Amino acid sequence: MSIELQLKVQDLNARYAQAIDDNKLEAWPDFFVEQGSYRVTTAENVERGLPLGMIYATSRAMLRDRVRSLRDANVYEAQRYRHLIGAPLIEPAGEGTVRAQTPFMIARIMHTGETVLFATGRYQDHIVFADGEARFAEKVVILDSRLIDTLLAIPL
Amino acid sequence: MSIELQLKVQDLNARYAQAIDDNKLEAWPDFFVEQGSYRVTTAENVERGLPLGMIYATSRAMLRDRVRSLRDANVYEAQRYRHLIGAPLIEPAGEGTVRAQTPFMIARIMHTGETVLFATGRYQDHIVFADGEARFAEKVVILDSRLIDTLLAIPL
Amino acid sequence: MSIELQLKVQDLNARYAQAIDDNKLEAWPDFFVEQGSYRVTTAENVERGLPLGMIYATSRAMLRDRVRSLRDANVYEAQRYRHLIGAPLIEPAGEGTVRAQTPFMIARIMHTGETVLFATGRYQDHIVFADGEARFAEKVVILDSRLIDTLLAIPL
Repeated sequence: MSIELQLKVQDLNARYAQAIDDNKLEAWPDFFVEQGSYRVTTAENVERGLPLGMIYATSRAMLRDRVRSLRDANVYEAQRYRHLIGAPLIEPAGEGTVRAQTPFMIARIMHTGETVLFATGRYQDHIVFADGEARFAEKVVILDSRLIDTLLAIPL
Repeated sequence: MSIELQLKVQDLNARYAQAIDDNKLEAWPDFFVEQGSYRVTTAENVERGLPLGMIYATSRAMLRDRVRSLRDANVYEAQRYRHLIGAPLIEPAGEGTVRAQTPFMIARIMHTGETVLFATGRYQDHIVFADGEARFAEKVVILDSRLIDTLLAIPL
Repeated sequence: MSIELQLKVQDLNARYAQAIDDNKLEAWPDFFVEQGSYRVTTAENVERGLPLGMIYATSRAMLRDRVRSLRDANVYEAQRYRHLIGAPLIEPAGEGTVRAQTPFMIARIMHTGETVLFATGRYQDHIVFADGEARFAEKVVILDSRLIDTLLAIPL
């Protein structure tokens, strides 16, 4: 485990979370490579061998569409989110790439001020380093809860 | 981003949180420089350009007064707090200083044992390194929730 | 504070949490040395000078027994856990060992999908580095809440 690599992944995760939590959704697709994929699934599905259950996006363009829909629907503005992301567990995955598993908790803060623990789980990421930038080639969000309907709409 | 700097800020945050969570409030002012400032505000206020809304203290002496009030009022003893602090995003801010943005969650544990997610937000810090010590020249606590009345009394 | 040491402890904590959260309980005892001890207590007990109140296990073999009981009783399967572990505060403790204090939050996710903040506290660990592996010689789980009855059954 290289210390530099560890901190680069940690930094990527911190910037990713900050963009979402600061409601800078338009920056969200840029954390992925052009043909990057983003999926959301549940731990239960993964254990049953159904990891591909809920595909979300397989390119930056699809992520941009998704952000546009969120803005149009105006659903995102009524609440805030706060990610807290744990230390990543990293393993090399070929020249200039790593795989990382990282636990997270997300709180939702309603307009009324009420705060709830909204989602927990882990990221299973494939990260590419190119041109001095770290980006997700693949991000799988594995949620601990099976109740994920309301979670699917927003970036996690 | 220097690895050493990253870990120094992380260490400062960890010691800061531990002092508060261990009820060692008398140590709290020492995490600031003599003329250090401590403010609490909300994300909503920051977005509206009202970042200076709630000034709290502009010196270590004022922070000490604050701790004395808390001890006299005896309000602090009835519950515990637990901070969990994410990875800081750091940028240089002149010779021997950095700016750091850091997400946090705070749980409150009542005397009855009940535990709630009490506050979430991010720290916006100006940190000074001098004499081998890292201290806050400025700490702005930006809360995600707009309901912060009850939060203002205690160190966050 | 050595950067390498800091990251090794962080890595140990991350793997420890992942094993529990992935329901790989059989791997749990292997995070301890053969005569490693595991205790759970409350902050209140520690402050009253009763740190040894609730001894749990003083060897890997006892931890294995514990896991077997959990599997037999089948209690563990009905819910999931998610640890989020903060940055460790480390101090040297003799050749090849360190002491570390580390805050944590644990969420419990019920089979119904309901998620609650289940436990908070800090680990007080004695960690040994031998044969390229970091392991717990002693792990004391100090819970913030005094209501820990239901917490004692599962690995924390």
